[in-house]
Amino acid sequence: MANEKRIFWYSLLLLASVALNLFFITNQYYLGTELKSQKLSWSLKAAEEAEAVASISCSGHGRAFLDGLIVDGKPICECNTCYGGSDCSLFSPDCSADANSGDPLFLEPFWMEHAASSAVLISGWHRMSYTFYDKSFISQQLENHVRRVHEVAKNAVTKGKYVLFGVGSTQLLAAAVYALSMNLSSPASVVASSPYYPLYKFQTNYFENKRFKFDEDTSLSSNSSYNTEANVIEFVTSPNNPDGNLKEAVSQGPLVRVIYDHAYYWPHFSAIPSPANEDVMIFTMSKLTGHAGSRIGWALIKDEQVYEDMNTYISVSEMGISREAQLRALQLMKAILDGNGTDIFDYAYKKMSYRWKKLSEIVSLSSRFSIQEIPPLFCNFFEKVRGPSPAYAWVKCEREEDTNCNEVLRAGNIIGREGSLFSDEDRYVRLSLLKSDDDFNLLMDHLSKLVAEENGAKTAWIF
Amino acid sequence: MANEKRIFWYSLLLLASVALNLFFITNQYYLGTELKSQKLSWSLKAAEEAEAVASISCSGHGRAFLDGLIVDGKPICECNTCYGGSDCSLFSPDCSADANSGDPLFLEPFWMEHAASSAVLISGWHRMSYTFYDKSFISQQLENHVRRVHEVAKNAVTKGKYVLFGVGSTQLLAAAVYALSMNLSSPASVVASSPYYPLYKFQTNYFENKRFKFDEDTSLSSNSSYNTEANVIEFVTSPNNPDGNLKEAVSQGPLVRVIYDHAYYWPHFSAIPSPANEDVMIFTMSKLTGHAGSRIGWALIKDEQVYEDMNTYISVSEMGISREAQLRALQLMKAILDGNGTDIFDYAYKKMSYRWKKLSEIVSLSSRFSIQEIPPLFCNFFEKVRGPSPAYAWVKCEREEDTNCNEVLRAGNIIGREGSLFSDEDRYVRLSLLKSDDDFNLLMDHLSKLVAEENGAKTAWIF
Repeated sequence: MANEKRIFWYSLLLLASVALNLFFITNQYYLGTELKSQKLSWSLKAAEEAEAVASISCSGHGRAFLDGLIVDGKPICECNTCYGGSDCSLFSPDCSADANSGDPLFLEPFWMEHAASSAVLISGWHRMSYTFYDKSFISQQLENHVRRVHEVAKNAVTKGKYVLFGVGSTQLLAAAVYALSMNLSSPASVVASSPYYPLYKFQTNYFENKRFKFDEDTSLSSNSSYNTEANVIEFVTSPNNPDGNLKEAVSQGPLVRVIYDHAYYWPHFSAIPSPANEDVMIFTMSKLTGHAGSRIGWALIKDEQVYEDMNTYISVSEMGISREAQLRALQLMKAILDGNGTDIFDYAYKKMSYRWKKLSEIVSLSSRFSIQEIPPLFCNFFEKVRGPSPAYAWVKCEREEDTNCNEVLRAGNIIGREGSLFSDEDRYVRLSLLKSDDDFNLLMDHLSKLVAEENGAKTAWIF
Repeated sequence: MANEKRIFWYSLLLLASVALNLFFITNQYYLGTELKSQKLSWSLKAAEEAEAVASISCSGHGRAFLDGLIVDGKPICECNTCYGGSDCSLFSPDCSADANSGDPLFLEPFWMEHAASSAVLISGWHRMSYTFYDKSFISQQLENHVRRVHEVAKNAVTKGKYVLFGVGSTQLLAAAVYALSMNLSSPASVVASSPYYPLYKFQTNYFENKRFKFDEDTSLSSNSSYNTEANVIEFVTSPNNPDGNLKEAVSQGPLVRVIYDHAYYWPHFSAIPSPANEDVMIFTMSKLTGHAGSRIGWALIKDEQVYEDMNTYISVSEMGISREAQLRALQLMKAILDGNGTDIFDYAYKKMSYRWKKLSEIVSLSSRFSIQEIPPLFCNFFEKVRGPSPAYAWVKCEREEDTNCNEVLRAGNIIGREGSLFSDEDRYVRLSLLKSDDDFNLLMDHLSKLVAEENGAKTAWIF
């Protein structure tokens, strides 16, 4: 009997043990399959390194980069302005709000949220050649994707246009001036109506030769057009940098050629009344995806000869543009086009219009400062009338004595860009609204204080 | 008794089953650890895509790229010249050997062998800003690594020199001409002694302005120097493109400034008699790692003002260079510096000297063709006297009637670059030796045939 009991218990134990074995076998099979599916070989190290760097905590006020300075074996946190400490957790409240540059970091969180679709791994042997298989300097895939992004954004007609890529729109501006001044009977005057983006003048002056010269005619204003018989190349930024308003050429005549800088002509920053369809239009990835550091821009060009001449500029000055930047731009375009392709526009418009609203609320309490008016317009992309969401505030100091508005703001711990740089009065200052959330919040804090002081001072003066 | 036997067997089975369980537990633990260690999240897709593309078989005569044209859902093979078919297995023996361009694909197999150390994964939010944390356009890490590579190669003194990066050495050549012609009393003549790299002339002519002008003085030859009191900027390529010999400036005078283009001054292509230590020296990643498509070059500059002025050129013309190209260049430099850092030089020298030997053998059988002499020299890197391994053959057609050597070679199915492009006679042709193995092998085949015909013809004529 005792033996039979033992046999019973042994049988039970054996059954349990075999069942456990079966469980392990099944489990191991699934683990093995999963492991196999993730079995990367040569790419694993690069992927692990990228994730390790991304996982370094910088308190939401900075980030570490793969090519950052190494301390204690890993890249250090690079903190946003006014944040410090090894994990960017130390805030300096008295630090100046830097609203100077047009660094489009407002889109950084968007890309962190789209990490998987926007990452790209470059092998050591990726595209070592000078040219692509079609002997061009440019990825045909990239061109196709850029055309599709324009279709989604409804901001430009690409059909019947040549697409030329450059090292940022900056390079394409010069390429356009060189191309449009070929074979002229007399040198071209390069012009822009004030206020205008200062690089046009700097760059044209720097490259000045017997074919073109910048004409610093301060009487050229956006409000009035003028007729000319001369060779003129006019830069038109639309929406304008600094003031965000849509802009047209002011020069009119048989020999006038216009370079439309449409860097900001995206639903992010402006209503899109209709797809732009000019002869020479320039766009940049910097203001579409926020990747200023990639230096990728493109021109849409109607005329074949102008396209060829601009292409010559790129070939002669540097034999095409980086394959790494092109591959990443392609990946970003793919990520944008995921789903119905409108996510980035919704995100960017929401953020920029929120910022404009915040700023407007503060400025509305002030009589010392005003900002530009941007009328609501019907937008082809959103299919409705929409309000402003410009990249910059064009601030005016209203008091007669405040002739240097930048100094007034500096005294309030705000760094802007002075109006004279845009060939306008120093009564104006450009404040950038497209930097990081930290930058924007600090700007709003300092501006609120400045306006509060103004009202406090006024109150003190009244009583 | 029967029961006791049963108990014995049950115990044995139970023991075995428990042992099996223990085995599974241990195994599962290790599998779990490995799975955890490979548990990539957002980077996995990019890594898998890169490996999938790399695994596409192109028969060793081509490769697929991430940004290649997509057919049936995956990128197509891009075949080497004279290979075709969907997997590049179809060889066209009558196809011309293309030895025209300086495409440095001879290093592609090196990078395929160093896949893990050279891969890099770029996150969607990597370096979106215009500038680095130090407000510069350039990764400090990249600069540090470039200095270290020069130390290993013993080919240039970097101590006390500024390092300036550009979009390929091409951009830096223009930047140097602009910088060296600042504030001169009279316009500078830009010169080079023949035979010389044609871009110097094209680029200088293209950008001509009141500060500089290319002086196409055909009497300037490498064999004789001349004195001048004028403002002269001389380009010196050393080792020279096309002929691979070390070269010095020929202009001498108080206002002469020299741009040393040291693109080929690496143990790959030349003996390194001593580390170069000139005022303005230009290098390119294209001829060091073979990544022509990345468009990364750098200048080593002694004088601070020249550095600043060249930097201004880069800022004005395109606001710095691509962060993606910089990150990848950094990864390639890290891969080069792995171990003792000499692998790439050993590999490149071995391959290029093998190619030169093969070519020399064939040409030695010919009286119709000759190639340049490159004397053996002591090499600071290899610490011994070493023979030639130039990037190009500078072929001369010796027969009096063969005034157009390029045509002679074309008739033999060889595409070279005509001597007149290098401001020399068309009796010379440059043949590129640094393309892919397929390109080189086909070149040797066609050249062998040409030489065999010559000897065959001679024999026929004698008898």
